Amino acid sequence: MGEKAVCLLSGGLDSATVLAYAISKGYQCYAISFNYGQRHMKELVSSEKLAQVFNVPRIVASINLNDLSKSALTGHGDVEKRDLKNISDSIPNTYVPSRNIIFLSMAASFAESHGSSTIFIGANALDYSGYPDCRPEFYNAFENALNIGTDLGNRKGFKIKVPLQYLKKSEIIKLGKSLGVPYELTSSCYEGGDEACGECDSCLLRLQGFMGAELEDPIKYKKYPDFYEKYLKTRKKN
Amino acid sequence: MGEKAVCLLSGGLDSATVLAYAISKGYQCYAISFNYGQRHMKELVSSEKLAQVFNVPRIVASINLNDLSKSALTGHGDVEKRDLKNISDSIPNTYVPSRNIIFLSMAASFAESHGSSTIFIGANALDYSGYPDCRPEFYNAFENALNIGTDLGNRKGFKIKVPLQYLKKSEIIKLGKSLGVPYELTSSCYEGGDEACGECDSCLLRLQGFMGAELEDPIKYKKYPDFYEKYLKTRKKN
Repeated sequence: MGEKAVCLLSGGLDSATVLAYAISKGYQCYAISFNYGQRHMKELVSSEKLAQVFNVPRIVASINLNDLSKSALTGHGDVEKRDLKNISDSIPNTYVPSRNIIFLSMAASFAESHGSSTIFIGANALDYSGYPDCRPEFYNAFENALNIGTDLGNRKGFKIKVPLQYLKKSEIIKLGKSLGVPYELTSSCYEGGDEACGECDSCLLRLQGFMGAELEDPIKYKKYPDFYEKYLKTRKKN
Repeated sequence: MGEKAVCLLSGGLDSATVLAYAISKGYQCYAISFNYGQRHMKELVSSEKLAQVFNVPRIVASINLNDLSKSALTGHGDVEKRDLKNISDSIPNTYVPSRNIIFLSMAASFAESHGSSTIFIGANALDYSGYPDCRPEFYNAFENALNIGTDLGNRKGFKIKVPLQYLKKSEIIKLGKSLGVPYELTSSCYEGGDEACGECDSCLLRLQGFMGAELEDPIKYKKYPDFYEKYLKTRKKN
């Protein structure tokens, strides 16, 4: 049996890829998903299916961020629509303050209780929404806080692994494809409808990624953005 | 109106004192209490009463640490009984991995959503149970992680205030008394019965504190430990 690891599994493209990556590196993975009062339950359904496909145990941790934090992702207002060009320039209203900090703290508690000191998270600092808790410096600082503030951290040292950190979305998708990630089961849209909206930051970054990887996104969209529509036409011509 | 601050309020002696201290320093306080699957609800009742007495708004954040973390405080096994002399030497089975880390992350999320960058916590590194997330170095490391990983931290800087950090329990009680803390409403016992057990780390440290402050603890105990019984006899003689 390989070393134990806890993988944050939101049900999105990045976390599915990270789980496949951790398994491919021989880790014995436990998935942890969060029911945090998000706008929709679609990503929890996706993460459940992904855990089944990858045959890993999964725990759903509940926290009510709804009352706690004002964000469009926890039902406070509509999801902001932005242009791909300036997505990384500012922090959108889907920002949930300290969300990854809370998730990692809870993952660390679970990990320590189950004898694992390795945590995988699918954060990415290139094609991302500009959230401060997706940045590399944050993960180092948080790992340090864990190593001081926990018994296991003191004794053994936690490792927060962020393997997608410096990959472009297209590179993540290529990596995932090579590892057999079933992207048709993943869910990225902030709106969480049966069909992805094709307009939010997350949909735009995802479709740009598939385009860059020269692949078609297998999930359904209500409406494609212009750039992806054009790409699909070019693909069909060739 | 003073600067806004979020105060972690467990309902115990330390957190009640910290709340009184923050108010005395002119902060406009919001209390946050946690329903985390603890052994008993007594401390939540205490924190509610304390918030009423101090006339501060209070939010109860829910997280199920029960499924997540193995600890005697979340119902996994009995609370370990130890001797006062070696309480700080090792970590007891009431240690909930990352508990303060999770609480502070959630408090930070709440604070940022409500425009506050100051968080008060009643941790104490002298008369404490030996939990790693009560140590001063941890708070510095965590503040640093927050300042990198959040928008408000980036812009303004979070301040985690730990005013009881270097105080002995007796000094905390003297401070609280001078600020009018109603210690009869606080609840410290890990067992959480109607009457405190008088045997757990928390009861022992509390009673030692009252003895050191030359005061009587106003709450009821099932049974006093020998040292406190002797102290009460000496008091009555004088």
